[in-house]
Amino acid sequence: MFMHNKRLMYTVRVGAPDPKLASLMLEQFGGPDGELAAAMRYFTQGLGDDDPGRKDMLIDIATEELSHLEVIGSIIAMLGKGTRGRLAEGVDAGAGLLTSLTAGGESHTLSVLYGSGPSLVNSAGVPWTAAYVDSRGDPTCDLRSNIAAESRAKIIYERLINITDDAGVKDALTFLMTREIAHQKSFEKALYAIEDNFPPGKLPGDPKFTDSYYNSSQGEGDTRGPWNQGEDWEFISDPDRMAAVDGGSGEASVKLSASDSRALNRMMERTASRADGNPLTGAELGSGAQLDIGGRPLS
Amino acid sequence: MFMHNKRLMYTVRVGAPDPKLASLMLEQFGGPDGELAAAMRYFTQGLGDDDPGRKDMLIDIATEELSHLEVIGSIIAMLGKGTRGRLAEGVDAGAGLLTSLTAGGESHTLSVLYGSGPSLVNSAGVPWTAAYVDSRGDPTCDLRSNIAAESRAKIIYERLINITDDAGVKDALTFLMTREIAHQKSFEKALYAIEDNFPPGKLPGDPKFTDSYYNSSQGEGDTRGPWNQGEDWEFISDPDRMAAVDGGSGEASVKLSASDSRALNRMMERTASRADGNPLTGAELGSGAQLDIGGRPLS
Amino acid sequence: MFMHNKRLMYTVRVGAPDPKLASLMLEQFGGPDGELAAAMRYFTQGLGDDDPGRKDMLIDIATEELSHLEVIGSIIAMLGKGTRGRLAEGVDAGAGLLTSLTAGGESHTLSVLYGSGPSLVNSAGVPWTAAYVDSRGDPTCDLRSNIAAESRAKIIYERLINITDDAGVKDALTFLMTREIAHQKSFEKALYAIEDNFPPGKLPGDPKFTDSYYNSSQGEGDTRGPWNQGEDWEFISDPDRMAAVDGGSGEASVKLSASDSRALNRMMERTASRADGNPLTGAELGSGAQLDIGGRPLS
Amino acid sequence: MFMHNKRLMYTVRVGAPDPKLASLMLEQFGGPDGELAAAMRYFTQGLGDDDPGRKDMLIDIATEELSHLEVIGSIIAMLGKGTRGRLAEGVDAGAGLLTSLTAGGESHTLSVLYGSGPSLVNSAGVPWTAAYVDSRGDPTCDLRSNIAAESRAKIIYERLINITDDAGVKDALTFLMTREIAHQKSFEKALYAIEDNFPPGKLPGDPKFTDSYYNSSQGEGDTRGPWNQGEDWEFISDPDRMAAVDGGSGEASVKLSASDSRALNRMMERTASRADGNPLTGAELGSGAQLDIGGRPLS
Amino acid sequence: MFMHNKRLMYTVRVGAPDPKLASLMLEQFGGPDGELAAAMRYFTQGLGDDDPGRKDMLIDIATEELSHLEVIGSIIAMLGKGTRGRLAEGVDAGAGLLTSLTAGGESHTLSVLYGSGPSLVNSAGVPWTAAYVDSRGDPTCDLRSNIAAESRAKIIYERLINITDDAGVKDALTFLMTREIAHQKSFEKALYAIEDNFPPGKLPGDPKFTDSYYNSSQGEGDTRGPWNQGEDWEFISDPDRMAAVDGGSGEASVKLSASDSRALNRMMERTASRADGNPLTGAELGSGAQLDIGGRPLS
Amino acid sequence: MFMHNKRLMYTVRVGAPDPKLASLMLEQFGGPDGELAAAMRYFTQGLGDDDPGRKDMLIDIATEELSHLEVIGSIIAMLGKGTRGRLAEGVDAGAGLLTSLTAGGESHTLSVLYGSGPSLVNSAGVPWTAAYVDSRGDPTCDLRSNIAAESRAKIIYERLINITDDAGVKDALTFLMTREIAHQKSFEKALYAIEDNFPPGKLPGDPKFTDSYYNSSQGEGDTRGPWNQGEDWEFISDPDRMAAVDGGSGEASVKLSASDSRALNRMMERTASRADGNPLTGAELGSGAQLDIGGRPLS
Repeated sequence: MFMHNKRLMYTVRVGAPDPKLASLMLEQFGGPDGELAAAMRYFTQGLGDDDPGRKDMLIDIATEELSHLEVIGSIIAMLGKGTRGRLAEGVDAGAGLLTSLTAGGESHTLSVLYGSGPSLVNSAGVPWTAAYVDSRGDPTCDLRSNIAAESRAKIIYERLINITDDAGVKDALTFLMTREIAHQKSFEKALYAIEDNFPPGKLPGDPKFTDSYYNSSQGEGDTRGPWNQGEDWEFISDPDRMAAVDGGSGEASVKLSASDSRALNRMMERTASRADGNPLTGAELGSGAQLDIGGRPLS
Repeated sequence: MFMHNKRLMYTVRVGAPDPKLASLMLEQFGGPDGELAAAMRYFTQGLGDDDPGRKDMLIDIATEELSHLEVIGSIIAMLGKGTRGRLAEGVDAGAGLLTSLTAGGESHTLSVLYGSGPSLVNSAGVPWTAAYVDSRGDPTCDLRSNIAAESRAKIIYERLINITDDAGVKDALTFLMTREIAHQKSFEKALYAIEDNFPPGKLPGDPKFTDSYYNSSQGEGDTRGPWNQGEDWEFISDPDRMAAVDGGSGEASVKLSASDSRALNRMMERTASRADGNPLTGAELGSGAQLDIGGRPLS
Repeated sequence: MFMHNKRLMYTVRVGAPDPKLASLMLEQFGGPDGELAAAMRYFTQGLGDDDPGRKDMLIDIATEELSHLEVIGSIIAMLGKGTRGRLAEGVDAGAGLLTSLTAGGESHTLSVLYGSGPSLVNSAGVPWTAAYVDSRGDPTCDLRSNIAAESRAKIIYERLINITDDAGVKDALTFLMTREIAHQKSFEKALYAIEDNFPPGKLPGDPKFTDSYYNSSQGEGDTRGPWNQGEDWEFISDPDRMAAVDGGSGEASVKLSASDSRALNRMMERTASRADGNPLTGAELGSGAQLDIGGRPLS
Repeated sequence: MFMHNKRLMYTVRVGAPDPKLASLMLEQFGGPDGELAAAMRYFTQGLGDDDPGRKDMLIDIATEELSHLEVIGSIIAMLGKGTRGRLAEGVDAGAGLLTSLTAGGESHTLSVLYGSGPSLVNSAGVPWTAAYVDSRGDPTCDLRSNIAAESRAKIIYERLINITDDAGVKDALTFLMTREIAHQKSFEKALYAIEDNFPPGKLPGDPKFTDSYYNSSQGEGDTRGPWNQGEDWEFISDPDRMAAVDGGSGEASVKLSASDSRALNRMMERTASRADGNPLTGAELGSGAQLDIGGRPLS
Repeated sequence: MFMHNKRLMYTVRVGAPDPKLASLMLEQFGGPDGELAAAMRYFTQGLGDDDPGRKDMLIDIATEELSHLEVIGSIIAMLGKGTRGRLAEGVDAGAGLLTSLTAGGESHTLSVLYGSGPSLVNSAGVPWTAAYVDSRGDPTCDLRSNIAAESRAKIIYERLINITDDAGVKDALTFLMTREIAHQKSFEKALYAIEDNFPPGKLPGDPKFTDSYYNSSQGEGDTRGPWNQGEDWEFISDPDRMAAVDGGSGEASVKLSASDSRALNRMMERTASRADGNPLTGAELGSGAQLDIGGRPLS
Repeated sequence: MFMHNKRLMYTVRVGAPDPKLASLMLEQFGGPDGELAAAMRYFTQGLGDDDPGRKDMLIDIATEELSHLEVIGSIIAMLGKGTRGRLAEGVDAGAGLLTSLTAGGESHTLSVLYGSGPSLVNSAGVPWTAAYVDSRGDPTCDLRSNIAAESRAKIIYERLINITDDAGVKDALTFLMTREIAHQKSFEKALYAIEDNFPPGKLPGDPKFTDSYYNSSQGEGDTRGPWNQGEDWEFISDPDRMAAVDGGSGEASVKLSASDSRALNRMMERTASRADGNPLTGAELGSGAQLDIGGRPLS
């Protein structure tokens, strides 16, 4: 069960409204690495998890991310306060307002559609989608996804800090960025507190293919490193050894019943593209002057 | 700032695992009228609102909806516990598991992709999208959207109750359904506590068109009611009075500069479809036996 | 069955092409509160409805919304005529065209991808999705959704009017805005013409929870109003009374078969995060200079 | 301006309700090749087109497609009438209803979310998106897209006919399928009525590369046909002739200012992956028993 | 099986970084007519096709499109190199960077979210979706879709060329544009090499409706052409001949069981909108000063 | 530049067609952790990366993932061969085909829409979206995302193996699963080959908040572990220490110009929800018998 306290987790002091900047901040409100994505990633994992300690941690951090969502949303709301009133009241209506709403970023949509309130879209105006949430119900995967997500969130905050001069905004963003570092540390501890967490799951890999590295991209500039050199790796550059690595024909086959075969063959015959001849095509009809239905120039 | 209490808002007692039923319950977890949509609708409005009482109400209810999200998510998690362990441990692997995962609903995706944990998709497996959230930053609109959303959520819960025999699930769903009624009542009070809330916004309508009703669908079965009859309405059935109601030509026009005109004319000439003649087409080439490039049958 | 008359419902007289303004107008062509969303909301409801009068009204208004879609689409087409010809014919090709297409809004995508024709995207370029359509097949819900949708459409038109100086565009937008008011009135009549329309559906709420208001957001600034005060409401502020309101444990449980239990326990053991000890993590490996595989500094 | 006539374009006589079949019919209501996609494809093109005859044809056919949308939607509504009443009234509530809603297809979502009314989703429950609409504002492209779209719609109708025994449904589907054939014929005529419609647009291709065919897929089974053999084609099989076909280095380069170079170099140094050595990784930490922070086994 | 050669198919020589131009180029990287859409369209068709020659061609061209994806992606990467380093290193942090990222197009999202690397979004920042891929598993449809897709891709490249002054970018774009022409030619040959490819599929149309043209859009400006005039067409303008063309009632009906009927009737009665009377509505309550619960002015 | 070899990377030998199983396999073709997502994740990173070794590795593995996409797509194509022919040729048309297409999973959509060919949707029929691709242009983030993605892909393959009895399918899936393990190992090496890779980016966190752990979820069941206990962590349970952690007021503020203030205040006054009184609402009008416009019972 959730409770809310009216004080923000971090005080938000914005220097002046700026709808352009507001629209960039949306990235961490309704963007793929934003706070809703974080909260929902950990919350869905926590609800499904059967390990009491990990479940507790996941809900702890999910809850904190909701508090962060409120902080970044409040920044956006404050940056939008100027446009909000003017557009609602029709102050400076016409070209003046139009110019102020199209000064850059996605402030035009933030203002016209969302009334300058925080909306769950990213900095391009794309609505948040749960396709961003990669919870899979296996802790060794989910914790790795969380570690990755926290690292991405950290970078996006860093970029937003780099494009801001407003001291109050920078200050709050720095707090939010810092917490992503702390969360990553917690998730790392929880991952490595799982005995034998690699590879994930229960089924072992096929030892014939666990240590092979296929040099699929070749040509000048081939460079090696610990990811494909050393005793751990079998480095394979011969293209013949990359096809049909099982030693088979490299073909796909299926055993069909007689009636399925018959149906498929009928379809194949009916829709075959003849390899011989040179049929007249629509493109050829369409190049230059047209023909009429009788094959004469369409005068 | 948010806090979480480990006790659910409502105790969840599920009789037995049922992945099919679990997948239907997703509708209120990650569906368009589900609890995340509700929580985010009110939370985004609350962050942007400038009226202290309404803002407080919006955050109160947003917070409660998060608690509901936890309840419905816990129902899904419990209904999925059977598949969760068996799929992870490979118990009954093969046809047995396949059959149990494809017994109906969307349990196949819930199990294979999400590991039987609650996921932010609807009962068809469609990821939640913020396109469901219709907050617009105007309270007379937003409160109407909230009223409508609560009514929809009520109906979906009613349908889910109607397809469930599990007493514990029905009990928790009834609680959740009831709260939608209570929330609708609150939002109604807040809407009607706004002086002169209709029409929304500040600009008045054009009185020439505020009371007209266009009988656009005609023929046997035309039926009237208070929505188009009585003193309040001018009922217009003559199609001529539905076109160009401004009394103009009904055409669209724009004043182009000379150079824009020239460019547009060039494009029009270049891409004109000639109205005369009867050109030979690709479909005609393709009907029956093909021709070769010289126009002869492709033997 | 539909018919079309070549005269627009309202004459469109655009002063001059303006691709930036065109891209903002897309909000009411392919945006969430635009005319396609309106037409499809009422059309899908009308097709499914069994009440003859309401069905007639829904199709009447759906049809009119299609006529509106044509009006707003024609505005966009006219505003785009300048870019359309120049980009197609390569007039002023290079930096000149680039500058004119990136002057603001989403005119770059409108021009490059859609050739300056009206496209079913919103003002941020997001394609229209039926996720915007909230028809649920229950008239007391659907009419409330329609009322809310009309109110939102009204506000968006008002905002677009506020950012336009072009008299012809303002004139046509005012007509479209006005019709949203009229439609809202019709839908209100149809809703209140349903006997006992609240709460929606057939199942009553649980009287224990219908009148409770949970003060989930607390702290300085708590404000009450008719939405949570007075005789109608039980106002609950004690967090203990918000958890497990059914009087139970507040826990989620499910009865598992012995074999399901065994599988789940095996999974839990295999994936437990140990609460004791302090495991070395990847983040710790990654802070500062790296170690080699033997645990020595990677010189 | 649109008008509606209450008579359907084609009479719909459904033999018996069948929610499973209803959910498959959604493919042509809210699917990618369904009637809304068709109507919107031609409608958006018609609004933008400057050629009077073609514009007229596009709106003619768009309007007819709306009439088709109504026919297919009415089929879905009729097939859903059984579930609609029973779910709303709670008849046979519990396991009985659950079983009937999960008998196959996507009837579970059609019933629970959409109340058995026609909804703008495809047969998998995916909401319709304007991403299906490929109008680009150039008639030689758009007409080709229309031709292709009509051919796809024809096939989907054919498949739906093949899975239906209901005579009334088959009859109406056959009508709809037939009209796609007629529409394709019209679009073909309009395309070939454009003088010199291939290649589309104004800029010619580079003659060095217009007639080359790159045999990018090689190995046993290489098969040739008129698409790559004959005088029209230069058939290139030598991989060396497929890389850097311009005769250059095949590298990507950009001229950077000194300050941009400096910044980029700093970033490269800071984030370089060292090619030498063999760093200890998280996966190695995670394989087998864990280490504690001091590098000892985590007992 | 795929192999990669480090040399690009076409050398990319960009004159100077330009994040605005980079964001427009995204249209052909992650847009609907971009190279990923092309590659995936042909690849999915090739995997499913049973005709050896056509399958080979489809994989040939799919593979080439992947090489094109690499070329356009490299152009974007080069155009973004300036912002990439500066944003990562915080050079010119603050208003300077903000201004450079919001100069137009969608460069703000390209830089902040994607770090100036090529990302699979279109020029509006909309993520690529497989909804763009219209492969249907029937070659006469799929080849038509391919022909249309190549024509669209050609036009988008032409537009991008028209907005670019950078000689190296223009050069590479011209190559890519040219190849779309060549691919269209191949697909045309393969289509017309299918005996009797129109209409697609196996079921014939109903001859009663194959040659009818419904003049659904009427009024001044009605224009005819080969798409609806001549011996091939029956031109129908009488609206009465467009409704219920089967000669039936034009109504939709379904045979319901007695119990289904009863349930539906109960629902209809319960939710009827009464046609008589004039109910007081929420909108009326909301117009002007509000009433209190007792019906008195809310003082 | 890419080349293709007609031999698959792994031979595919399917025992018998099974459209239900085919539809589940889609998860790794067009699902979020499928092979297209993998290929595009690494390909986009590789194009943007400036580190030669890492870039080479990324393109190597991206290329291999394309070969995997071909393998899993071929499995799907083989499993679908039975339905493909029968549906195209209308064999067993009617109820027989319907039953075979709705036996479970998403085979109905796979067959009707995609003609049983591999399509870029997941096992629920949801089209692939680039929202799955989390490349951000920073290697320390991207490599962590890759590690997480490989771990997720491994688990999904494991689940698919667990639901399959077909020996040939299991064999090929085991190969694909194994390669995810190998790729994870490579990405781990590349990550730890970056000096000082944690925290990502350049800006340090604020040391005041790097080591705090907020116990946001409280109540019975609170459990600690290395993620929040020990010397590394400051464990904070007092809710007062979680609000306004900066020591400020916890409020959000912005400095508005006088004119912005005036506009905002006007809007606030115009849209205030009055806290006093008890307004009559629409829900109250709608509960029980309706009133007519004059406030009398609507007889």
